[in-house]
Amino acid sequence: MVSVDLNCDCGEGFGAYRMGDDAAMLDIVTSVNVACGFHAGDPEIMAKTFAAAKAKGIAIGAHPGFSDLWGFGRRRLPHTAGEIERLIAYQIGAAGALAAYAGARLAHVKIHGALSNIAAEEESIAQTVARAIKTVGKDLAFLVPAATKLEQAGLAQGLSVAREIYADRAYTDAGLLMARSLPGAVLHDAGEAATRAVSMISEGAIIAASGKRLRTRIDSICVHGDTPGAVAMARAVRAKLEEAGIAITPFARQ
Amino acid sequence: MVSVDLNCDCGEGFGAYRMGDDAAMLDIVTSVNVACGFHAGDPEIMAKTFAAAKAKGIAIGAHPGFSDLWGFGRRRLPHTAGEIERLIAYQIGAAGALAAYAGARLAHVKIHGALSNIAAEEESIAQTVARAIKTVGKDLAFLVPAATKLEQAGLAQGLSVAREIYADRAYTDAGLLMARSLPGAVLHDAGEAATRAVSMISEGAIIAASGKRLRTRIDSICVHGDTPGAVAMARAVRAKLEEAGIAITPFARQ
Amino acid sequence: MVSVDLNCDCGEGFGAYRMGDDAAMLDIVTSVNVACGFHAGDPEIMAKTFAAAKAKGIAIGAHPGFSDLWGFGRRRLPHTAGEIERLIAYQIGAAGALAAYAGARLAHVKIHGALSNIAAEEESIAQTVARAIKTVGKDLAFLVPAATKLEQAGLAQGLSVAREIYADRAYTDAGLLMARSLPGAVLHDAGEAATRAVSMISEGAIIAASGKRLRTRIDSICVHGDTPGAVAMARAVRAKLEEAGIAITPFARQ
Amino acid sequence: MVSVDLNCDCGEGFGAYRMGDDAAMLDIVTSVNVACGFHAGDPEIMAKTFAAAKAKGIAIGAHPGFSDLWGFGRRRLPHTAGEIERLIAYQIGAAGALAAYAGARLAHVKIHGALSNIAAEEESIAQTVARAIKTVGKDLAFLVPAATKLEQAGLAQGLSVAREIYADRAYTDAGLLMARSLPGAVLHDAGEAATRAVSMISEGAIIAASGKRLRTRIDSICVHGDTPGAVAMARAVRAKLEEAGIAITPFARQ
Repeated sequence: MVSVDLNCDCGEGFGAYRMGDDAAMLDIVTSVNVACGFHAGDPEIMAKTFAAAKAKGIAIGAHPGFSDLWGFGRRRLPHTAGEIERLIAYQIGAAGALAAYAGARLAHVKIHGALSNIAAEEESIAQTVARAIKTVGKDLAFLVPAATKLEQAGLAQGLSVAREIYADRAYTDAGLLMARSLPGAVLHDAGEAATRAVSMISEGAIIAASGKRLRTRIDSICVHGDTPGAVAMARAVRAKLEEAGIAITPFARQ
Repeated sequence: MVSVDLNCDCGEGFGAYRMGDDAAMLDIVTSVNVACGFHAGDPEIMAKTFAAAKAKGIAIGAHPGFSDLWGFGRRRLPHTAGEIERLIAYQIGAAGALAAYAGARLAHVKIHGALSNIAAEEESIAQTVARAIKTVGKDLAFLVPAATKLEQAGLAQGLSVAREIYADRAYTDAGLLMARSLPGAVLHDAGEAATRAVSMISEGAIIAASGKRLRTRIDSICVHGDTPGAVAMARAVRAKLEEAGIAITPFARQ
Repeated sequence: MVSVDLNCDCGEGFGAYRMGDDAAMLDIVTSVNVACGFHAGDPEIMAKTFAAAKAKGIAIGAHPGFSDLWGFGRRRLPHTAGEIERLIAYQIGAAGALAAYAGARLAHVKIHGALSNIAAEEESIAQTVARAIKTVGKDLAFLVPAATKLEQAGLAQGLSVAREIYADRAYTDAGLLMARSLPGAVLHDAGEAATRAVSMISEGAIIAASGKRLRTRIDSICVHGDTPGAVAMARAVRAKLEEAGIAITPFARQ
Repeated sequence: MVSVDLNCDCGEGFGAYRMGDDAAMLDIVTSVNVACGFHAGDPEIMAKTFAAAKAKGIAIGAHPGFSDLWGFGRRRLPHTAGEIERLIAYQIGAAGALAAYAGARLAHVKIHGALSNIAAEEESIAQTVARAIKTVGKDLAFLVPAATKLEQAGLAQGLSVAREIYADRAYTDAGLLMARSLPGAVLHDAGEAATRAVSMISEGAIIAASGKRLRTRIDSICVHGDTPGAVAMARAVRAKLEEAGIAITPFARQ
């Protein structure tokens, strides 16, 4: 039986601020990526999110990003490769410590926002990221955008790699996310996104906006929790997958 | 032969800012407490400081404090015990990850500034701090102000405890640091500070400003690196100790 | 005819974060207090909030608070009187500049959260606050909690003072806000809050939780925009006031 | 008699951090550019710097930069033109308010670091910057790198423009600062820098690293206060200028 993981970003508030409906998302997904205090998150929110995820049996991951609270980690900040390596190491270490407080263990790392986009495109940054994970958490799975430089770098470092696609983001023919600033970059129709997700899992391929197929293994589908209609879309994706006979389980480590 | 450790805070810059002459201090001390990015420090400075300390064979510790860059961790910020527990856990985890990048391991934890002062006075906060260390780094030694609630809490949690005195700070009769705002709270004369430090080690006692003695085991002497004349004072303290036949070695774990 | 102003805090987001439903509140109130980038707010949000308020003919105020984004300005941070004076001056200056971008002028200043609470209780801090306003914006009205040290300080400095009560907060017999941590400190029932607000305006008195009356002039009622049910409560307060024949207009400068 | 202004950046500390020897520089220069709390500076440091400058009769300017304390405003952060406009307006407003506390008035605005470099190269950003100054401080002089897009934009907006050269930075043939990462970008020899500065004033031209001359009016020379040897270099530049019979006075407004 075909199975796939559903993941979402969680714990992306800061202090009194909240982003998305974490409680609702934790009833839908099988893995969560928890912000580590740089682009979002703080020790309070991290600890609560880890505890809530563990209570529901959901796999827990660290979700490091640029140190850019104002930009929510979505701005491409100028950094050297070494700086990126160290800011990822720092965040994984911090997340691991707070997961211990929930009596939990980190299962994976997924990179956030602009940092992930850069690394998916640039081989040297991708290698830097994979090396940071290997150095501070070699047993952690590496959840990567399927068919990108990050996948290759993770495999080259001998990491356990899991490949994800986005339910609600349009893809270029190169298999990269279309920039949010472009029209059609974000799918707003839950039914359309759900149907496309089922097709991608069934075909074992990324389906670009042009219709082009890029064959790839897919271990997880990322659903968002921070946009209007996010929860409804995540539920629709899950329902369609189950309807299609696809099991929803935490991603198997490769 | 009597021996004692010399420790100082290091890596307390941020971005382009620097605090104190770390390079000079690393030639004097046997242990360093490295800021973890909350009251000072960032991943770049932490990694460089860990590497420099390791290259000189100096014991490396995490130095967590309040999240207060502007106040340099010296303001008593309102926090619940739970918040303190989690911000310490976060910082120890982050520091441990970056130490791994220097091929080093954290040897100890020492709490910074206002947070240390609060915990040295309040039993419930002291217990919170010790529990945080036990949960995320039970093998780490806990470097504490001698004869305080922090010492008791560390022992109660079964941590390996090392007790320190300050070379350049005046003590109250209760064995606590005099508030920096009081006259005479900071000793500026290197010779006087060095002589007092030797006396405290020789007598096995804290010597209060009043002359009162509080008997205590002393494993380490803290010298500052961030004040004018700091390096000269640290050298004077080290020289006087050696003159008195006291060996300068990293603190033995109890 | 009796009239009163309705004010609320606005623009309390930061970067990608939002707090409360500003658009809805702007249809209900006659004055807004705009966060200035310290406890909340940033230049983008400030400019947008000023423009939106001006478009609706709503009076615009600066809403300075402690530099405490994580604590949303609700923690009593240790500060000297001089530091408070300067952080208020800084924020008023910044807000005035961005109001100019909306072709608008600041009409008033209202202090936020913990800083307001401290100043309402401590005469020396209240005087500091009033002096800051006088120095950088002597023509600005000073919107203060009625019957507090802030009111006295504003009058003593010769500022145009407007007195407010809170629709949804319980009062002590001394006329101060009950601490949020106490049961009953926040009124959640819109009808009850609205009825009490009308009574306070009609009677010209603060009505404490005990039922005690403190006679005071009341120029404005503060309604919150950042709690669940906030918009509904604000609408209820406005409706009840209108029902009672009380006109809702920007506060007259004294 | 030929005259020129000497300017330097001041007040670039933050909290407990300090950058450069402001006290020494205030005895050398005739204008200071004061950091406004985004790339450096805080209300305390700003107020102290304004007061110290006023006490010495030195012209006071606002020195806005990117919101990037960690990068000290030297990183080219991604921003829209509108965001730049508003962050400059905010900082000028804040600086003006704190200058009032020193009984002083802002005389000019100079843009900091990466933001200045971008604006000196890109016409649309230069216009944005000039418009921000005009909107919130149309009487402020605009201190710009000579012969750049910023000069043109300031003139186009009808601002009073003052043109500066850098004593210790190498120039490209296009009259732009060589990137700090390039060899030779920063002049470390005080004598060489001073001699070149005198030549530039005497010839009325920027002298590029290649020897090429770009004729331009020069109203001010920027000397740095934040590098090793900075004070010595500033003194050398001032001495050489005086030796050459050039008067050192605050720049005349055009």
